[in-house]
Amino acid sequence: MLFCKIIASEIPAKIIYEDEFSLAFLDINPINTGHVLLLPRRHFENIFDMPEDLAAKLSAVSKKLAIAIKGSLSADGINITSNNGAAAGQLVFHAHTHIIPRYTGDGFTHWKGKRGYKDGEMNELVRKIKTALN
Amino acid sequence: MLFCKIIASEIPAKIIYEDEFSLAFLDINPINTGHVLLLPRRHFENIFDMPEDLAAKLSAVSKKLAIAIKGSLSADGINITSNNGAAAGQLVFHAHTHIIPRYTGDGFTHWKGKRGYKDGEMNELVRKIKTALN
Repeated sequence: MLFCKIIASEIPAKIIYEDEFSLAFLDINPINTGHVLLLPRRHFENIFDMPEDLAAKLSAVSKKLAIAIKGSLSADGINITSNNGAAAGQLVFHAHTHIIPRYTGDGFTHWKGKRGYKDGEMNELVRKIKTALN
Repeated sequence: MLFCKIIASEIPAKIIYEDEFSLAFLDINPINTGHVLLLPRRHFENIFDMPEDLAAKLSAVSKKLAIAIKGSLSADGINITSNNGAAAGQLVFHAHTHIIPRYTGDGFTHWKGKRGYKDGEMNELVRKIKTALN
């Protein structure tokens, strides 16, 4: 798998940051230049199978990277995103987080929902999700 | 500020989850129904001023919510996103993470970058970001 080969240094990448549990490098197909991918070294497919303590460690690294990217590239904002599952736009099935520098007027716009909620629908969804949490 | 008032129970919201440091509720303008916002109770503007240990705690909650939303709503995937700064699409300036259920064929597509990298540009960006990290 592509990202596993980068972690094993079998495929080169432009490394931004590494420590014992994570690795970050430039996305070769950037949204804006300076778009970074942060990965755990251990192979997990996405957030669904990643241990919580690892997700927590990665989020601290994400914050450091977001601040460094914003400052060093004079970005106006940063998106931090993970796409979990093909339906969510995940293309490589080794868990990764996108850290994307954004600039005022760069033209990327967010999704608009297609509809709001019907009467009673929110309560029903709350019940379902809360049940799954317990 | 809107989210502060929700945290203070001055404005109602459809609460999905809460603990001593965080709160999650249904976004009233969902991308897909079941779209949840996760917030720290303490006021931080976004990832840039949020303490690392709080970001780490929130990421563990994100994972729980992602799994619960996927399971209970039969979603095919989940996007977990934070928009930090107006240029990144942040609309409410109390830090929050979007947890968005996705379905195969729901029609939401990801941004395409407008250009790749020029010769030497990646090395220059790596140098800049790494300098800012140190």
